[in-house]
Amino acid sequence: MVARQGRRPGNPDTRETILQAARSAFAANGFASTSIRQIANAAAVDPALIHHYFGSKEKLFLATVRVGVDIRAKIAEVGASRREDLGRVLIRTLITTWDSDAGISLVAAFRAALADPMTSRMVREFLTSVVLAELAAVMHLAPGEAPQRAGLIASQVVGLITARYLLALEPLASMPVESIVAAVGPTIERYLTGDIS
Amino acid sequence: MVARQGRRPGNPDTRETILQAARSAFAANGFASTSIRQIANAAAVDPALIHHYFGSKEKLFLATVRVGVDIRAKIAEVGASRREDLGRVLIRTLITTWDSDAGISLVAAFRAALADPMTSRMVREFLTSVVLAELAAVMHLAPGEAPQRAGLIASQVVGLITARYLLALEPLASMPVESIVAAVGPTIERYLTGDIS
Repeated sequence: MVARQGRRPGNPDTRETILQAARSAFAANGFASTSIRQIANAAAVDPALIHHYFGSKEKLFLATVRVGVDIRAKIAEVGASRREDLGRVLIRTLITTWDSDAGISLVAAFRAALADPMTSRMVREFLTSVVLAELAAVMHLAPGEAPQRAGLIASQVVGLITARYLLALEPLASMPVESIVAAVGPTIERYLTGDIS
Repeated sequence: MVARQGRRPGNPDTRETILQAARSAFAANGFASTSIRQIANAAAVDPALIHHYFGSKEKLFLATVRVGVDIRAKIAEVGASRREDLGRVLIRTLITTWDSDAGISLVAAFRAALADPMTSRMVREFLTSVVLAELAAVMHLAPGEAPQRAGLIASQVVGLITARYLLALEPLASMPVESIVAAVGPTIERYLTGDIS
């Protein structure tokens, strides 16, 4: 018998019930306005059980869009690098993650997010309230400038992903990781600390 | 009686027949491998009639994806600027075009291109063989470096479009044109002429 990967102990039906309730709630109200408690009520389970199965609202959201990457851990990895390496480490972590087996789930989720305005809204809220906010924190952006700088970084990162993985534009699609790091790292560096006005 | 805009003289059924044949041919064989002659054969019309209705293979392609922007004219507009202004003029032309009424057709076509792998392929070929090749030419990129530099420019441009128009990420989505030009123009400038290795 082969053990299923990633399955936590407990009743698989309960896990699926929670996922379905979460999907409906995120789709109806967006990421930011949906609470674990609301999802627990809709699924008729104890909120503690959702924490037991999924750990956090972010991880539950990633499970609803079938993404098997711990984005918060990746951001912490970037944040652990030296200040002057942040731009290059961000691009290196991004590309190696999307190039990996787990990246397939990211490509599928991103394609869905762009195709459907409702999913776009969920993903936008998730990006803004979790990914960009965390990135701004680990990169020590000044609060007044953080949204604009994080947004500019997002514009380069999202474009790299769209061009390399969704459109498969050559030569970007088959460029080695370190060539991309060398070419795009300084762009991130400038958006982090350079003159942008 | 109100004249229909953009309708050329001739039988509207013929125009629609050509468009349907073009859509099928581009979807089956991609943009690059499809010729006006093949489309003319499939539609059982003279190739000269396709030129009469649509002007060129590029314009026919844009009509099949319902884009009402003359992309070649926009690229020529960018190419007419002074060398040192190219980065900023590219971003200004891009954002003002996508912000305009005609931009709605671009957003719809781009969303479709990213959602469906078959359409992605057509759009990839169109971007590579027309848009990026033309940009490389008007920007006088050295042939050996042109694909990589054009690809990097594409990664920033595609990301700006995806973040501002498809994901509507704030503050990018409502940032004034000139703020985006000031922030992103120098990135394009570096991809055009800077050290990228």
